[in-house]
Amino acid sequence: MSEPCDFGLIGLAVMGENLALNVESRGYRVAVYNRTASVMEEFIAGRAKGKAFVGCQTVAELCKSLKRPRKVMMMVKAGPAVDAVIKELTPHLEPGDIIIDGGNTYYADTERRTKEVEAAGFLYSGTGVSGGEEGALKGPSLMPGGSTDSWPALKPIFQAISAKVGPNEDIPCCEWVGPRGAGHYVKMVHNGIEYGDMQLICEAYSMMKETLGLSNDELYDVFTEWNTGVLDSYLIEITRDIFSVKDTDGTHLVDKVLDRAGAKGTGKWMSQLALDLGVPSTLVTEAVYARGLSARKEERVRASELLKGPSPKYAGDKKAFVEQVRQALYASKIVSYAQGFVQLQAAAVEHDWPLNYGDCAMLWRGGCIIRAVFLDRIKEAFDANPQLENLLLAPYFATAVDQAQSAWRHVVSTAALQGVPVPAFATALAYYDGYRRATLPANLLQAQRDYFGAHTYERTDKPRGEMFHTDWLSKRRDPR
Amino acid sequence: MSEPCDFGLIGLAVMGENLALNVESRGYRVAVYNRTASVMEEFIAGRAKGKAFVGCQTVAELCKSLKRPRKVMMMVKAGPAVDAVIKELTPHLEPGDIIIDGGNTYYADTERRTKEVEAAGFLYSGTGVSGGEEGALKGPSLMPGGSTDSWPALKPIFQAISAKVGPNEDIPCCEWVGPRGAGHYVKMVHNGIEYGDMQLICEAYSMMKETLGLSNDELYDVFTEWNTGVLDSYLIEITRDIFSVKDTDGTHLVDKVLDRAGAKGTGKWMSQLALDLGVPSTLVTEAVYARGLSARKEERVRASELLKGPSPKYAGDKKAFVEQVRQALYASKIVSYAQGFVQLQAAAVEHDWPLNYGDCAMLWRGGCIIRAVFLDRIKEAFDANPQLENLLLAPYFATAVDQAQSAWRHVVSTAALQGVPVPAFATALAYYDGYRRATLPANLLQAQRDYFGAHTYERTDKPRGEMFHTDWLSKRRDPR
Repeated sequence: MSEPCDFGLIGLAVMGENLALNVESRGYRVAVYNRTASVMEEFIAGRAKGKAFVGCQTVAELCKSLKRPRKVMMMVKAGPAVDAVIKELTPHLEPGDIIIDGGNTYYADTERRTKEVEAAGFLYSGTGVSGGEEGALKGPSLMPGGSTDSWPALKPIFQAISAKVGPNEDIPCCEWVGPRGAGHYVKMVHNGIEYGDMQLICEAYSMMKETLGLSNDELYDVFTEWNTGVLDSYLIEITRDIFSVKDTDGTHLVDKVLDRAGAKGTGKWMSQLALDLGVPSTLVTEAVYARGLSARKEERVRASELLKGPSPKYAGDKKAFVEQVRQALYASKIVSYAQGFVQLQAAAVEHDWPLNYGDCAMLWRGGCIIRAVFLDRIKEAFDANPQLENLLLAPYFATAVDQAQSAWRHVVSTAALQGVPVPAFATALAYYDGYRRATLPANLLQAQRDYFGAHTYERTDKPRGEMFHTDWLSKRRDPR
Repeated sequence: MSEPCDFGLIGLAVMGENLALNVESRGYRVAVYNRTASVMEEFIAGRAKGKAFVGCQTVAELCKSLKRPRKVMMMVKAGPAVDAVIKELTPHLEPGDIIIDGGNTYYADTERRTKEVEAAGFLYSGTGVSGGEEGALKGPSLMPGGSTDSWPALKPIFQAISAKVGPNEDIPCCEWVGPRGAGHYVKMVHNGIEYGDMQLICEAYSMMKETLGLSNDELYDVFTEWNTGVLDSYLIEITRDIFSVKDTDGTHLVDKVLDRAGAKGTGKWMSQLALDLGVPSTLVTEAVYARGLSARKEERVRASELLKGPSPKYAGDKKAFVEQVRQALYASKIVSYAQGFVQLQAAAVEHDWPLNYGDCAMLWRGGCIIRAVFLDRIKEAFDANPQLENLLLAPYFATAVDQAQSAWRHVVSTAALQGVPVPAFATALAYYDGYRRATLPANLLQAQRDYFGAHTYERTDKPRGEMFHTDWLSKRRDPR
């Protein structure tokens, strides 16, 4: 029998293959299994050739080839397939062995599976993996959660394969997140923030293209410059790149791409959970809805022939407006992250997860889609005040938004007047303006609810929790 | 044994009592039961005294006292209590008997229960009831769904007790909605639209109070006038009334009501289901989120001391601005209803419900919280074109929004500049501006997704469904 392996991987689609290659490249011996054996055989004969891999024909063989405690990572489609693989695996495991789910799993499934696998005597880790195919191969962002006892065994391998950041590129984008489904929840919030970031960039693009008439070459220059400042990030960088890519006929490819956005569901999950938690995560939700509206392409084409609106044309200084759009994007982005962390905090309370929010920011600092210099500031804010209730209240961000707000207001105002839809810019501003108000018009809303449904209300001059009801109908002025 | 009863009612909380009294007042004999017998006994000795009621000590007795097919309406707390009552009832029923759930039940529970009760040989009706306590007593809006065969037996009673509208007040606000959970779904959309209407009124109030500094007396006059035109509705009417109600010390009560809004969950359900359906019901969701933000009162008070913003002050013509706010409210309301009907259409397709949208509008025409003259126009729009894909495309509404849009844009723009949060006005405008565009910036978003995740994209110059992938990284201009 050959030398035992350090790590097992099940599911050799491209993400699984790349993760396996990444693990092996750090000096580990890796056993691989795929339900369709030919996929495994091709991998062993191809990309894995000459490397420390052991191809296995069965799950039993895979388990047999691993050192204890066994570490078996599933890279299979989220859903019933995960339960099926767990069921297949457990007869071949021994106490203390670890099953890892690296898929895009709904956190509640991971909550359940952690409990089930632990009850069967094993350890479980639901680990968020971000960074796409390239990240998986070269260094992803990893968000491990699950059985707390699994972490010491996983840590050396996971931190070895993850992306690294910091001046010496030695801070791994991988730290323990929390028990049960915490890792997958944090991954979901990462994805939801990604939805918001992408929508905000699209709105900035739309404003500059429609009101200023910037060409793709000019947009390339704008995003090149933006990537040197506070917006420095992977998404700004690839947006820059996109404006430079030419189609075979020499024209810009981005103009040939159909404006009908797809979605895979994590933004929707985050929105639905925000609604359950009662926290206003408006950015991700408007981003999801904006994708939904974009998907109704044929209907929009019909509507565009019937519904009127102004023709966008900006009369002011072009260069100044580009800078104002940048500031609107930056301020909106701060609101988006503030909302994401508020949701994480609410989820942590609900599920009893002791999360470290500064660590979460650092997990996303490299390897993943939302990686950005900006996240260092978030880390600093939570380090300075781990109980920070909203990022907007951290001095750095309060100042940043204050400095940007005049430009931000001008851009949202201009969009409304010129008929350019900027739902995310606008909802971010409405959130900021609502959050910073001691008084909102909800007093009228509570009065309405009490009028028609006797829902009762609290009073500004009485203790909270003391409820009042008024017979408004009989006390109203006679309307004649 | 006494004369048999026409209708049975279980659950004598205030809604149940009032509905029972309403049914009896139309010439029907009503049997009533309550789990705590003393509640029933007090009712019989009190409000029911001298009327055609039979108080029952057991569910068996209730069933025994009813004519066949029995019609038993449950007015109990939505959730497990409904299943418990069904279980208690069925041993005492005969084929063709009808169980009605008049509670605020989640539609999917009604889908399931209809199937279960039908499988047991009986009929089931999930009926939305709107109008609060007063509506229940004098004439609610009723939205019956469930077993189609239940309708002929329920129709005479339900249409007798429901609100009536029309020039001769003879059109009942009660018509068959559709199979299984359709009635409760339509009720949920009613409630979600109510969330939107209330939020829009609050935003109008906020703009007039903050930027114009209108007093409560002036607001009373404004809403009095608004209630004479296209906005004529119950919610505008009670808002007018609220501004006239004085506290014991002679000041306006509305200013003493705490601005912390509660919610009962139907707006949340509608939002979560919109997200599942992929339809952008942005108004209800922003309204739910706005309530959530209002609920964080203490946090907002803290934030108000740290976060800066402009001081609202409108320099233009006050009277003209009030009229512009009215138009913003009207246009936003049209968008809100358009979104609600789009969601109904999508749900009807998903669940195979043959809904009549004009009828739905008429169900809400009287009795319920969102009753409004406006709904006649919706009825007309769907009568003219039952396949209408969006209310905004109906000539009447397209013209109405077009006439209002300049004012609407001015109000949203002013709110952004002056720092007054109007999330619902703003999202409605963004929806309008997105919907009327043949082209949205989602081409960039699809390019981003293809760049980092190989998600593939469609092309404007190729047939839909044909997917393309580009290796953007290798084709980008060398950034240096």
